Amino acid sequence: MISIKDIIVKKFGATSLMSINRIKTIANQIKKSSISNKKLVIVVSAMGSETNNLIDLVNSISKQPAPRELDMLLSTGEQKSIALLTVALNSIGLKAKSFNSHQSRILTNNLHNNARILEINTKEIINALNENYVCVIAGFQGLTSTGDITTLGRGGSDTTAVALSAALDAKICEIYTDVDGVYTTDPNIHSDAKIIEKISYEEMLELSKLGAQVLHPRAVEIASKFSIPLVVKSSFEDGKGTIIREKEKNMEKFNVKGITVDHNIIYFSIEKLPKDPNICYQLINEINKKDISIDMVIQNLKNSEFNDLSFTVSKDHFNQVKKICATFLNQYASSLLQYSSLFSKISIVGIGINNHPEVLADFFQCIASLGLNIECLTTSQMKISCLMNKDFSEKAITALHDLFFSTHLNSKNTAI
Amino acid sequence: MISIKDIIVKKFGATSLMSINRIKTIANQIKKSSISNKKLVIVVSAMGSETNNLIDLVNSISKQPAPRELDMLLSTGEQKSIALLTVALNSIGLKAKSFNSHQSRILTNNLHNNARILEINTKEIINALNENYVCVIAGFQGLTSTGDITTLGRGGSDTTAVALSAALDAKICEIYTDVDGVYTTDPNIHSDAKIIEKISYEEMLELSKLGAQVLHPRAVEIASKFSIPLVVKSSFEDGKGTIIREKEKNMEKFNVKGITVDHNIIYFSIEKLPKDPNICYQLINEINKKDISIDMVIQNLKNSEFNDLSFTVSKDHFNQVKKICATFLNQYASSLLQYSSLFSKISIVGIGINNHPEVLADFFQCIASLGLNIECLTTSQMKISCLMNKDFSEKAITALHDLFFSTHLNSKNTAI
Repeated sequence: MISIKDIIVKKFGATSLMSINRIKTIANQIKKSSISNKKLVIVVSAMGSETNNLIDLVNSISKQPAPRELDMLLSTGEQKSIALLTVALNSIGLKAKSFNSHQSRILTNNLHNNARILEINTKEIINALNENYVCVIAGFQGLTSTGDITTLGRGGSDTTAVALSAALDAKICEIYTDVDGVYTTDPNIHSDAKIIEKISYEEMLELSKLGAQVLHPRAVEIASKFSIPLVVKSSFEDGKGTIIREKEKNMEKFNVKGITVDHNIIYFSIEKLPKDPNICYQLINEINKKDISIDMVIQNLKNSEFNDLSFTVSKDHFNQVKKICATFLNQYASSLLQYSSLFSKISIVGIGINNHPEVLADFFQCIASLGLNIECLTTSQMKISCLMNKDFSEKAITALHDLFFSTHLNSKNTAI
Repeated sequence: MISIKDIIVKKFGATSLMSINRIKTIANQIKKSSISNKKLVIVVSAMGSETNNLIDLVNSISKQPAPRELDMLLSTGEQKSIALLTVALNSIGLKAKSFNSHQSRILTNNLHNNARILEINTKEIINALNENYVCVIAGFQGLTSTGDITTLGRGGSDTTAVALSAALDAKICEIYTDVDGVYTTDPNIHSDAKIIEKISYEEMLELSKLGAQVLHPRAVEIASKFSIPLVVKSSFEDGKGTIIREKEKNMEKFNVKGITVDHNIIYFSIEKLPKDPNICYQLINEINKKDISIDMVIQNLKNSEFNDLSFTVSKDHFNQVKKICATFLNQYASSLLQYSSLFSKISIVGIGINNHPEVLADFFQCIASLGLNIECLTTSQMKISCLMNKDFSEKAITALHDLFFSTHLNSKNTAI
C-alpha cells in the first residue's frame, strides 16, 4: 500500500491546455515533478475555448438545451484533454491512465450544469496509484447515482481537484493557471498589484466570492473544510505562487489582503414589501433553494408601513432570479421590483477589518475624495463591499490599492 | 410493457451529421417517422470529419497512442453527436435521451480500437422506450467488463446499430448514409451502376468484404446471424434503398449481384517455405489471433522441396502483418518474404457463381480482351476475385459491369 500522504494533486486549467504544444509542456512539467513525487493525480479542464465552442454549437440548435444533454456534451471537452495529456505523458515515458466521469466515481447530486459533489469512491484511483500510474482525471464533471453525467458549474475543475485532494488525503493541491498567484488586486487594473504569498482560507474565500477569478469559492470552501493546503501558481513560468492554508496567529493583526471588483452582478431592489420580517426571509429562501448565491443583502425600514429589500446576484442567474421574484411578489400588490446591471461591486478583504473602524473611515474618505457616489455598502467581519457605477470602478480600485498597499504598506497593513 | 416488435433502429453516419443544419434535418426526418413508429432507437457516428480530426490531434503528440487512451479520445466524437441530436429532437418537441458507452451497456472484449461486442444489457434502453423516449445511442463504442471505453474499429457504428437491433429484437435496422443504396458497382467508376433492390446477407457480406464501403461486413454478419432485415438508404433524399435479408428461393438462380474493387490491400507472398502443411496454417493462425482478416490465400506447390504462400490483407494491418511474418519466418532461413501495394482486388459476387463455369470463362475472356494481366485469382461459392495492377482496375470494372449488367441483363443475369 502507498503512504497516502505522498499524493499530490495538480490541476491544469483551460489556458494551460490551449494547444498540443502546451499539453506537451505540461507533460514535461509533470514528468519533472514526478521524480520527487511518486504519486501524482492530475485534474484537467477542457482545452482552451473548447467548452465555449461546445456551448455555441448547442446554442445554434437550442438556447435552452436539456441540462442532462448539455452535461453529456460539455463533458466531452475534459475527456478529450485527459486522453491527450495521458498520451503526452506516455510518449515521454511516464506510465499514466485517464479517468472520465464514469471512472473517477465522483458522485454528485442530480442538479445538472451545477451539481454538488456528494462522495468520491477513490478505489480505482488508489489502485492505479499503487500500480505507479499517474492518474489523469477529467475535472468539472461527475456522475449521479443513476449514472448520468453532471457538470459542476463555474470553477468546476478547481472543485474537482480540491475534492479529490480531500478524498485522497493529499499532501497538497496545486492549481496551475495563467497567472502566477493571487494578487492584491487585478494587475490589469493596477500595475502595482502584488502577489500575495500566503493567505488564509477565509480571506481567499472572500476574495473569490467577490470576483477574484483565480479560484472558485467552492474549491476554497472544500479546501478549508478538509485543511488541504492549496497553491495557486503559473503553468507558464516558475514561481512560488500563493499558498492558501489555515490562518496563522500573526495573520490576526489588521491586514487588508486584497481588493476585488466584480462587474458580473445584477442589483435587485424591491420596494414596498409588507412589514413582515418573514417575507424577506421567504423570498431569499426561494432563491437559495435554486442554489443561487446572493450577496449584499440590505433590508431598509423605509417607513412605518413597508419594508425594502435589495441584494446582488451573479448575472448568470439574472433570468432565474427575476422569475422567482416576479412569481413571489405576485401576492404583494404594493411591491415594486427593480434591477440594474449598471453597478460594479468593489470590496476590500482581510481578517479583522471590522475590528478596525479606521479602515471603514479610510475607505469612505478615499471614495469621497474621488468625488464618487456609493449606491450601497455592507460590511462583515472580513470585508467591506460597496456598489458603484461601473464606469468609475477602476478609478476607485486604483485609489484604494494605493491607499492600502502603497501608503499603508509599512504602517497599518503589515502582513501581506 | 412495449411490444418489442415495434422497435426500429436507425443509424446515421458521419456524412449525415456533417453540420448543425444536417443534424436538424435528421431530427426532422426522425420526427416524421416517429408518427407511425412509436419506438425509435437512433445510433449515430461522430460528426463529419471529427474522428479523423481527433486522430490527427493525437498523432501530433504520438504516432502510437496507447489503445485505451485512443478509445477514450475517439469516443468523445459520438458523445458529442448524441447530445446535439438529442437537443435537436427535444427542440422540435420529441422526447429523447442520449446514451454514451457507459449507459448503453454494450459490453465488449478488451481489444481496444477493434473490440468485439460480447453482450448488450438493454434494460435501460427498454425502460426509456417504455417512457416514450427516442433513445439516441453513441455508435462505434462499447465498454469492457472493467469499465474501460472501447471502440469497434471500422464500420463500428453499423455494427452497433445491427447488434442493438438484435439485442432489442427490432423489426428492422435502417442504415442512413450518403448514397441511396447498394450499387452493382461503384457509381464513381461506372455511371451505369444500378441500385440493387434486394440482396441476401451472404451476397452483401461478400460485397462488403470485397470493398463495397457502404456497409461493414461485421454488421452484415450480425444481421444475418439474427435475421435482422437491413435497409441501406440515403439520408439526403427519399428512395427505397437496398434491402438486405434472408435469401429467397428465386435468388438461387445464376445471378451476379455486384462488382467491387478494393485498392486498400497489401499483397504478401512468401516463397520457399518448408514443405510442411502445418507451417502455412501456423502463420495464418498467428495473423488470425490478432483478429486480422486475410483473403485470397493461395498455396502453391512450386517444387518438391518448398511451399509458397500468398495472401492479401487490408493496408490498415500492413505493419502488424509484416511484423508477424518476419518474426514467424525467422525460424525458416530459406524463406523469402515480399509484399506489394501495387494491386487492386476486383471481385464479382453472386449466389451460385461457382456452379456456372461460364461466368469464370466470361470473366477471363473479358479481362483478356482488354489485354490485361491477372496476378492471381481465387473463386468461392459466391465470388470470383482477382488481383490486378491498380492502374487498370477501373478499365476492368467498366468492362465487367458492361458484360454482366448490360449485355447479360435480360439473358443470363436475371435477378438484380
